[in-house]
Amino acid sequence: MSSLEISSSCFNRETKLPLFPPLVEDSAFEPSRKDIDEVEEKSKDVINFTAEKLSVDEVSQLVMSPLCGAVSLFVGTTRNNFEGKKVISLEYEAYLPMAKNEVKKICSDIRQKWPVKHIAVFHRLGLVPVSEASIIIAVSSAHRAASLEAVSYAIDTLKAKVPIWKKEIYEESSSWKGNKECFWDSLLKHSLLCYTRGTKGGKRKQDKWICRMKGYLKWN
Amino acid sequence: MSSLEISSSCFNRETKLPLFPPLVEDSAFEPSRKDIDEVEEKSKDVINFTAEKLSVDEVSQLVMSPLCGAVSLFVGTTRNNFEGKKVISLEYEAYLPMAKNEVKKICSDIRQKWPVKHIAVFHRLGLVPVSEASIIIAVSSAHRAASLEAVSYAIDTLKAKVPIWKKEIYEESSSWKGNKECFWDSLLKHSLLCYTRGTKGGKRKQDKWICRMKGYLKWN
Repeated sequence: MSSLEISSSCFNRETKLPLFPPLVEDSAFEPSRKDIDEVEEKSKDVINFTAEKLSVDEVSQLVMSPLCGAVSLFVGTTRNNFEGKKVISLEYEAYLPMAKNEVKKICSDIRQKWPVKHIAVFHRLGLVPVSEASIIIAVSSAHRAASLEAVSYAIDTLKAKVPIWKKEIYEESSSWKGNKECFWDSLLKHSLLCYTRGTKGGKRKQDKWICRMKGYLKWN
Repeated sequence: MSSLEISSSCFNRETKLPLFPPLVEDSAFEPSRKDIDEVEEKSKDVINFTAEKLSVDEVSQLVMSPLCGAVSLFVGTTRNNFEGKKVISLEYEAYLPMAKNEVKKICSDIRQKWPVKHIAVFHRLGLVPVSEASIIIAVSSAHRAASLEAVSYAIDTLKAKVPIWKKEIYEESSSWKGNKECFWDSLLKHSLLCYTRGTKGGKRKQDKWICRMKGYLKWN
Protein backbone atom coordinates (compact mmCIF):
# COMPACT_ATOMS: atom_id res chain seq x y z
CA MET A 1 0.00 0.00 0.00
CA SER A 2 1.61 3.28 -1.08
CA SER A 3 1.13 6.69 0.47
CA LEU A 4 -0.74 7.69 -2.68
CA GLU A 5 -3.31 4.96 -2.09
CA ILE A 6 -3.82 6.15 1.46
CA SER A 7 -4.30 9.66 0.24
CA SER A 8 -7.07 8.74 -2.18
CA SER A 9 -8.77 6.44 0.33
CA CYS A 10 -8.96 9.31 2.82
CA PHE A 11 -10.83 11.51 0.41
CA ASN A 12 -13.06 8.95 -1.26
CA ARG A 13 -14.47 7.07 1.69
CA GLU A 14 -17.75 8.31 3.07
CA THR A 15 -17.31 9.78 6.50
CA LYS A 16 -18.71 12.70 8.37
CA LEU A 17 -15.39 13.46 10.01
CA PRO A 18 -12.98 15.92 8.46
CA LEU A 19 -10.00 14.04 7.04
CA PHE A 20 -6.81 15.24 5.48
CA PRO A 21 -4.34 13.50 3.21
CA PRO A 22 -1.16 11.97 4.56
CA LEU A 23 1.89 14.15 4.53
CA VAL A 24 4.86 12.85 2.60
CA GLU A 25 8.15 14.53 3.42
CA ASP A 26 11.71 13.78 2.42
CA SER A 27 14.50 13.68 4.95
CA ALA A 28 18.26 13.51 5.04
CA PHE A 29 18.33 9.71 5.55
CA GLU A 30 20.92 8.22 3.18
CA PRO A 31 21.62 4.55 2.47
CA SER A 32 25.15 3.38 3.23
CA ARG A 33 25.83 2.77 -0.48
CA LYS A 34 23.84 4.42 -3.26
CA ASP A 35 24.08 1.34 -5.43
CA ILE A 36 22.51 -0.97 -2.81
CA ASP A 37 19.14 -0.26 -4.36
CA GLU A 38 18.74 0.53 -8.02
CA VAL A 39 16.01 3.03 -7.23
CA GLU A 40 16.84 5.11 -4.15
CA GLU A 41 13.99 5.05 -1.65
CA LYS A 42 12.91 8.42 -0.27
CA SER A 43 12.06 8.76 3.41
CA LYS A 44 8.45 9.58 4.22
CA ASP A 45 6.24 10.70 7.08
CA VAL A 46 2.67 9.44 6.72
CA ILE A 47 0.15 11.17 9.01
CA ASN A 48 -3.49 10.22 8.93
CA PHE A 49 -6.54 11.02 11.06
CA THR A 50 -9.38 8.79 9.97
CA ALA A 51 -12.76 7.39 11.02
CA GLU A 52 -11.78 4.00 9.53
CA LYS A 53 -10.71 1.03 11.66
CA LEU A 54 -6.90 0.96 11.90
CA SER A 55 -4.82 -1.99 10.68
CA VAL A 56 -1.46 -2.82 12.30
CA ASP A 57 -0.34 -4.71 9.16
CA GLU A 58 -1.23 -1.79 6.89
CA VAL A 59 0.65 0.79 8.99
CA SER A 60 3.69 -1.46 9.50
CA GLN A 61 3.87 -2.16 5.75
CA LEU A 62 3.94 1.61 5.11
CA VAL A 63 7.25 1.98 6.95
CA MET A 64 8.93 -1.28 5.82
CA SER A 65 12.04 -0.71 3.74
CA PRO A 66 14.73 -2.97 2.24
CA LEU A 67 17.27 -0.55 3.78
CA CYS A 68 15.96 -1.20 7.31
CA GLY A 69 16.42 -4.04 9.77
CA ALA A 70 13.96 -2.73 12.35
CA VAL A 71 10.35 -1.58 12.62
CA SER A 72 8.99 -0.53 16.02
CA LEU A 73 5.31 0.06 16.65
CA PHE A 74 3.03 1.36 19.35
CA VAL A 75 -0.69 0.59 19.27
CA GLY A 76 -3.01 2.42 21.67
CA THR A 77 -6.25 0.52 22.29
CA THR A 78 -9.50 1.17 24.17
CA ARG A 79 -9.39 -0.39 27.64
CA ASN A 80 -12.61 -1.76 29.13
CA ASN A 81 -12.01 0.10 32.39
CA PHE A 82 -11.03 3.53 33.67
CA GLU A 83 -10.66 4.38 37.34
CA GLY A 84 -12.79 1.37 38.29
CA LYS A 85 -15.61 2.19 35.86
CA LYS A 86 -16.60 -0.11 32.98
CA VAL A 87 -15.87 1.58 29.65
CA ILE A 88 -18.05 0.70 26.62
CA SER A 89 -16.09 2.71 24.05
CA LEU A 90 -14.10 5.92 23.56
CA GLU A 91 -14.97 8.69 21.12
CA TYR A 92 -12.15 10.88 19.78
CA GLU A 93 -12.22 14.39 18.37
CA ALA A 94 -9.24 16.45 17.23
CA TYR A 95 -8.65 20.04 16.25
CA LEU A 96 -7.27 18.82 12.93
CA PRO A 97 -5.19 21.75 11.62
CA MET A 98 -3.36 21.97 14.95
CA ALA A 99 -3.16 18.19 15.44
CA LYS A 100 -1.65 17.77 11.97
CA ASN A 101 0.86 20.52 12.66
CA GLU A 102 1.89 19.05 16.02
CA VAL A 103 2.38 15.57 14.57
CA LYS A 104 4.48 17.04 11.73
CA LYS A 105 6.67 18.69 14.35
CA ILE A 106 7.02 15.39 16.22
CA CYS A 107 8.19 13.71 12.99
CA SER A 108 10.63 16.53 12.38
CA ASP A 109 11.98 16.26 15.96
CA ILE A 110 12.44 12.51 15.55
CA ARG A 111 14.51 13.04 12.39
CA GLN A 112 16.72 15.49 14.29
CA LYS A 113 17.29 12.98 17.08
CA TRP A 114 17.50 9.56 15.39
CA PRO A 115 18.52 8.17 11.96
CA VAL A 116 15.10 6.74 11.06
CA LYS A 117 13.77 5.92 7.59
CA HIS A 118 9.95 6.11 7.53
CA ILE A 119 7.43 7.32 10.14
CA ALA A 120 3.69 6.60 10.16
CA VAL A 121 1.22 8.10 12.66
CA PHE A 122 -2.40 6.99 12.27
CA HIS A 123 -5.10 8.24 14.68
CA ARG A 124 -8.69 7.06 14.58
CA LEU A 125 -11.47 9.58 15.20
CA GLY A 126 -15.04 8.97 16.29
CA LEU A 127 -16.10 5.87 18.24
CA VAL A 128 -13.43 3.31 19.08
CA PRO A 129 -14.85 0.16 20.74
CA VAL A 130 -13.01 -1.81 23.44
CA SER A 131 -9.84 -3.63 22.18
CA GLU A 132 -9.71 -1.65 18.92
CA ALA A 133 -6.83 0.71 18.09
CA SER A 134 -7.18 4.47 18.48
CA ILE A 135 -3.57 5.14 17.44
CA ILE A 136 -0.79 3.30 15.64
CA ILE A 137 2.72 4.73 15.43
CA ALA A 138 5.33 2.91 13.32
CA VAL A 139 8.96 3.84 12.69
CA SER A 140 11.60 2.02 10.63
CA SER A 141 15.38 2.31 10.91
CA ALA A 142 18.52 0.45 9.86
CA HIS A 143 19.24 -0.59 13.47
CA ARG A 144 16.77 -1.20 16.28
CA ALA A 145 17.71 1.41 18.90
CA ALA A 146 16.63 4.35 16.70
CA SER A 147 13.13 3.06 15.95
CA LEU A 148 12.50 1.83 19.51
CA GLU A 149 13.46 5.18 21.04
CA ALA A 150 11.65 7.18 18.36
CA VAL A 151 8.34 5.36 18.93
CA SER A 152 8.50 5.97 22.71
CA TYR A 153 9.27 9.63 22.10
CA ALA A 154 6.45 9.92 19.54
CA ILE A 155 3.67 8.59 21.75
CA ASP A 156 4.87 10.50 24.85
CA THR A 157 5.07 13.76 22.89
CA LEU A 158 1.79 13.18 21.06
CA LYS A 159 -0.01 12.65 24.38
CA ALA A 160 1.54 15.83 25.78
CA LYS A 161 1.14 18.18 22.82
CA VAL A 162 -1.47 17.13 20.27
CA PRO A 163 -4.97 18.56 20.82
CA ILE A 164 -7.08 15.41 20.84
CA TRP A 165 -10.05 14.94 23.16
CA LYS A 166 -11.80 11.75 24.08
CA LYS A 167 -15.27 11.00 25.40
CA GLU A 168 -15.29 8.09 27.79
CA ILE A 169 -18.56 6.23 27.36
CA TYR A 170 -19.37 4.22 30.48
CA GLU A 171 -22.27 1.84 31.08
CA GLU A 172 -24.48 4.59 32.51
CA SER A 173 -22.74 7.89 31.75
CA SER A 174 -20.12 9.61 29.62
CA SER A 175 -17.66 12.51 29.83
CA TRP A 176 -15.42 14.45 27.42
CA LYS A 177 -11.78 14.72 28.48
CA GLY A 178 -8.50 15.98 27.13
CA ASN A 179 -5.47 13.82 27.65
CA LYS A 180 -4.37 14.45 31.23
CA GLU A 181 -0.76 14.78 30.00
CA CYS A 182 -1.66 17.39 27.37
CA PHE A 183 -0.98 21.06 28.05
CA TRP A 184 -3.82 22.05 25.68
CA ASP A 185 -6.23 20.40 28.06
CA SER A 186 -4.89 22.40 31.02
CA LEU A 187 -5.21 25.62 29.03
CA LEU A 188 -8.79 24.91 28.07
CA LYS A 189 -9.80 23.77 31.55
CA HIS A 190 -8.32 26.93 33.06
CA SER A 191 -10.05 29.16 30.50
CA LEU A 192 -13.37 27.45 31.08
CA LEU A 193 -13.01 27.77 34.84
CA CYS A 194 -12.32 31.49 34.59
CA TYR A 195 -15.19 31.95 32.13
CA THR A 196 -17.73 30.17 34.29
CA ARG A 197 -16.66 32.13 37.36
CA GLY A 198 -17.75 35.25 35.50
CA THR A 199 -15.73 37.63 37.65
CA LYS A 200 -13.62 40.54 36.45
CA GLY A 201 -10.44 38.73 37.56
CA GLY A 202 -11.67 35.55 35.92
CA LYS A 203 -12.16 37.38 32.61
CA ARG A 204 -8.63 38.80 32.76
CA LYS A 205 -7.21 35.33 33.46
CA GLN A 206 -9.25 33.88 30.62
CA ASP A 207 -7.99 36.55 28.19
CA LYS A 208 -4.42 35.82 29.33
CA TRP A 209 -4.76 32.10 28.56
CA ILE A 210 -6.47 32.73 25.21
CA CYS A 211 -3.67 35.15 24.34
CA ARG A 212 -1.11 32.47 25.18
CA MET A 213 -2.94 29.96 23.01
CA LYS A 214 -3.10 32.44 20.10
CA GLY A 215 0.62 33.09 20.50
CA TYR A 216 1.29 29.39 20.41
CA LEU A 217 -0.85 28.96 17.30
CA LYS A 218 0.99 31.82 15.60
CA TRP A 219 4.57 30.94 16.48
CA ASN A 220 4.56 27.15 16.60
CA MET B 1 -6.64 -16.34 16.68
CA SER B 2 -6.19 -18.20 19.94
CA SER B 3 -3.02 -19.77 21.28
CA LEU B 4 -4.64 -23.17 20.71
CA GLU B 5 -4.97 -22.43 16.99
CA ILE B 6 -1.32 -21.46 16.80
CA SER B 7 -0.37 -24.64 18.55
CA SER B 8 -2.20 -26.83 16.05
CA SER B 9 -0.91 -24.84 13.06
CA CYS B 10 2.66 -25.41 14.24
CA PHE B 11 2.24 -29.15 14.24
CA ASN B 12 0.08 -29.55 11.14
CA ARG B 13 1.89 -27.43 8.59
CA GLU B 14 4.42 -29.20 6.42
CA THR B 15 7.92 -28.02 7.16
CA LYS B 16 11.33 -29.61 7.37
CA LEU B 17 12.33 -27.46 10.34
CA PRO B 18 11.73 -28.65 13.88
CA LEU B 19 8.89 -26.65 15.40
CA PHE B 20 7.49 -26.64 18.88
CA PRO B 21 4.14 -25.52 20.23
CA PRO B 22 3.70 -22.10 21.82
CA LEU B 23 4.09 -21.96 25.54
CA VAL B 24 1.11 -20.65 27.45
CA GLU B 25 1.89 -19.55 30.99
CA ASP B 26 -0.16 -17.79 33.62
CA SER B 27 1.18 -14.85 35.56
CA ALA B 28 0.26 -12.72 38.52
CA PHE B 29 -1.33 -9.96 36.36
CA GLU B 30 -4.62 -8.96 37.90
CA PRO B 31 -7.30 -6.64 36.50
CA SER B 32 -8.13 -3.61 38.62
CA ARG B 33 -11.66 -4.94 39.27
CA LYS B 34 -12.56 -8.61 38.94
CA ASP B 35 -16.02 -7.77 37.65
CA ILE B 36 -14.73 -5.64 34.74
CA ASP B 37 -14.82 -8.75 32.57
CA GLU B 38 -17.31 -11.50 33.14
CA VAL B 39 -14.68 -14.08 32.23
CA GLU B 40 -11.29 -13.24 33.70
CA GLU B 41 -8.60 -13.30 31.05
CA LYS B 42 -5.45 -15.25 31.89
CA SER B 43 -2.06 -13.85 30.95
CA LYS B 44 -0.11 -15.80 28.37
CA ASP B 45 3.35 -16.07 26.86
CA VAL B 46 3.26 -17.33 23.27
CA ILE B 47 6.63 -18.45 21.91
CA ASN B 48 6.96 -19.78 18.40
CA PHE B 49 9.85 -20.70 16.10
CA THR B 50 8.47 -21.37 12.64
CA ALA B 51 9.41 -21.63 8.97
CA GLU B 52 6.19 -19.79 8.05
CA LYS B 53 6.13 -16.13 7.00
CA LEU B 54 5.38 -13.97 10.05
CA SER B 55 2.34 -11.67 10.24
CA VAL B 56 2.41 -8.49 12.32
CA ASP B 57 -1.41 -8.46 12.53
CA GLU B 58 -1.53 -12.05 13.73
CA VAL B 59 1.08 -11.56 16.46
CA SER B 60 -0.40 -8.24 17.63
CA GLN B 61 -3.88 -9.81 17.83
CA LEU B 62 -2.47 -12.55 20.09
CA VAL B 63 -1.56 -10.01 22.78
CA MET B 64 -4.58 -7.68 22.46
CA SER B 65 -6.73 -7.60 25.57
CA PRO B 66 -9.79 -5.59 26.68
CA LEU B 67 -7.89 -4.96 29.92
CA CYS B 68 -5.02 -3.23 28.07
CA GLY B 69 -4.59 0.22 26.57
CA ALA B 70 -1.21 -0.46 24.97
CA VAL B 71 0.49 -2.92 22.64
CA SER B 72 4.15 -2.40 21.71
CA LEU B 73 5.85 -4.34 18.95
CA PHE B 74 9.29 -4.86 17.51
CA VAL B 75 9.73 -6.34 14.04
CA GLY B 76 13.20 -7.37 12.90
CA THR B 77 13.48 -7.51 9.09
CA THR B 78 16.14 -8.56 6.58
CA ARG B 79 18.14 -5.55 5.37
CA ASN B 80 19.42 -5.53 1.81
CA ASN B 81 22.92 -4.56 2.95
CA PHE B 82 25.51 -5.52 5.53
CA GLU B 83 28.88 -3.81 5.86
CA GLY B 84 28.60 -2.46 2.33
CA LYS B 85 27.70 -5.81 0.75
CA LYS B 86 24.39 -6.48 -1.00
CA VAL B 87 22.37 -9.06 0.95
CA ILE B 88 19.95 -11.34 -0.97
CA SER B 89 18.44 -13.05 2.08
CA LEU B 90 19.22 -14.35 5.57
CA GLU B 91 18.89 -17.95 6.71
CA TYR B 92 18.26 -18.64 10.40
CA GLU B 93 18.95 -21.71 12.49
CA ALA B 94 18.40 -22.11 16.22
CA TYR B 95 19.32 -24.67 18.84
CA LEU B 96 15.63 -25.03 19.68
CA PRO B 97 15.58 -26.56 23.20
CA MET B 98 17.98 -23.87 24.41
CA ALA B 99 16.36 -21.08 22.38
CA LYS B 100 12.94 -21.95 23.79
CA ASN B 101 14.34 -22.03 27.32
CA GLU B 102 16.07 -18.67 26.94
CA VAL B 103 12.95 -16.98 25.54
CA LYS B 104 10.88 -18.42 28.41
CA LYS B 105 13.35 -16.87 30.84
CA ILE B 106 13.09 -13.51 29.04
CA CYS B 107 9.29 -13.64 29.43
CA SER B 108 9.67 -14.52 33.09
CA ASP B 109 12.15 -11.64 33.63
CA ILE B 110 9.74 -9.22 31.93
CA ARG B 111 6.93 -10.25 34.29
CA GLN B 112 9.24 -9.60 37.26
CA LYS B 113 10.07 -6.12 35.97
CA TRP B 114 6.84 -4.78 34.43
CA PRO B 115 3.07 -5.29 34.89
CA VAL B 116 2.40 -6.65 31.40
CA LYS B 117 -0.54 -8.78 30.26
CA HIS B 118 0.43 -10.92 27.25
CA ILE B 119 3.80 -11.55 25.56
CA ALA B 120 4.35 -13.04 22.10
CA VAL B 121 7.76 -13.87 20.61
CA PHE B 122 7.74 -15.27 17.07
CA HIS B 123 11.01 -16.13 15.28
CA ARG B 124 11.18 -17.30 11.70
CA LEU B 125 13.68 -20.03 10.78
CA GLY B 126 15.12 -20.89 7.39
CA LEU B 127 15.35 -18.37 4.55
CA VAL B 128 14.04 -14.83 5.19
CA PRO B 129 14.10 -12.63 2.05
CA VAL B 130 14.85 -8.89 2.13
CA SER B 131 12.10 -6.79 3.83
CA GLU B 132 10.43 -9.81 5.45
CA ALA B 133 10.30 -10.29 9.23
CA SER B 134 12.65 -12.68 11.01
CA ILE B 135 11.29 -11.80 14.46
CA ILE B 136 8.19 -10.17 15.91
CA ILE B 137 7.91 -9.38 19.62
CA ALA B 138 4.60 -8.03 20.97
CA VAL B 139 3.70 -7.09 24.55
CA SER B 140 0.42 -5.70 25.93
CA SER B 141 -0.10 -3.76 29.15
CA ALA B 142 -2.69 -1.51 30.79
CA HIS B 143 -0.45 1.57 30.38
CA ARG B 144 2.12 2.23 27.67
CA ALA B 145 5.42 2.52 29.60
CA ALA B 146 5.40 -1.15 30.64
CA SER B 147 4.96 -2.59 27.14
CA LEU B 148 7.38 -0.12 25.52
CA GLU B 149 10.16 -0.91 28.00
CA ALA B 150 9.44 -4.64 27.96
CA VAL B 151 9.76 -4.87 24.17
CA SER B 152 13.13 -3.06 24.19
CA TYR B 153 14.36 -5.35 26.95
CA ALA B 154 13.08 -8.44 25.12
CA ILE B 155 14.87 -7.79 21.82
CA ASP B 156 18.11 -6.66 23.51
CA THR B 157 18.17 -9.75 25.74
CA LEU B 158 17.16 -12.10 22.95
CA LYS B 159 20.02 -10.85 20.79
CA ALA B 160 22.47 -11.29 23.68
CA LYS B 161 21.36 -14.66 25.04
CA VAL B 162 19.37 -16.79 22.62
CA PRO B 163 21.39 -19.24 20.47
CA ILE B 164 20.28 -18.30 16.97
CA TRP B 165 22.65 -18.24 14.00
CA LYS B 166 22.16 -16.59 10.66
CA LYS B 167 23.67 -17.19 7.25
CA GLU B 168 24.11 -13.98 5.31
CA ILE B 169 23.57 -14.74 1.65
CA TYR B 170 25.27 -12.12 -0.54
CA GLU B 171 25.22 -11.78 -4.31
CA GLU B 172 28.34 -13.91 -4.75
CA SER B 173 29.03 -15.52 -1.37
CA SER B 174 27.57 -16.47 2.00
CA SER B 175 28.66 -16.92 5.62
CA TRP B 176 27.17 -18.34 8.83
CA LYS B 177 27.30 -16.02 11.84
CA GLY B 178 26.09 -15.87 15.39
CA ASN B 179 24.64 -12.62 16.61
CA LYS B 180 27.65 -10.43 17.44
CA GLU B 181 25.92 -9.46 20.71
CA CYS B 182 25.34 -13.08 21.75
CA PHE B 183 27.67 -14.71 24.29
CA TRP B 184 26.91 -18.15 22.79
CA ASP B 185 28.60 -17.02 19.63
CA SER B 186 31.76 -15.99 21.52
CA LEU B 187 31.84 -19.35 23.29
CA LEU B 188 31.53 -21.31 20.06
CA LYS B 189 34.06 -19.16 18.20
CA HIS B 190 36.57 -19.60 21.03
CA SER B 191 36.01 -23.39 21.16
CA LEU B 192 36.40 -23.69 17.41
CA LEU B 193 39.60 -21.62 17.47
CA CYS B 194 41.13 -23.81 20.19
CA TYR B 195 40.05 -26.97 18.37
CA THR B 196 41.54 -25.97 15.05
CA ARG B 197 44.82 -24.98 16.70
CA GLY B 198 45.13 -28.60 17.82
CA THR B 199 47.66 -27.86 20.56
CA LYS B 200 47.66 -29.28 24.06
CA GLY B 201 46.88 -25.86 25.52
CA GLY B 202 44.22 -25.36 22.88
CA LYS B 203 42.56 -28.62 23.86
CA ARG B 204 42.54 -27.61 27.54
CA LYS B 205 40.97 -24.26 26.66
CA GLN B 206 38.40 -25.97 24.47
CA ASP B 207 37.48 -28.39 27.28
CA LYS B 208 37.15 -25.45 29.66
CA TRP B 209 34.71 -23.64 27.36
CA ILE B 210 32.71 -26.80 26.65
CA CYS B 211 32.55 -27.43 30.40
CA ARG B 212 31.23 -23.90 30.93
CA MET B 213 28.61 -24.43 28.22
CA LYS B 214 27.54 -27.75 29.76
CA GLY B 215 27.28 -26.07 33.14
CA TYR B 216 25.13 -23.35 31.64
CA LEU B 217 22.92 -25.90 29.93
CA LYS B 218 22.53 -27.80 33.21
CA TRP B 219 21.91 -24.92 35.59
CA ASN B 220 20.06 -22.40 33.49
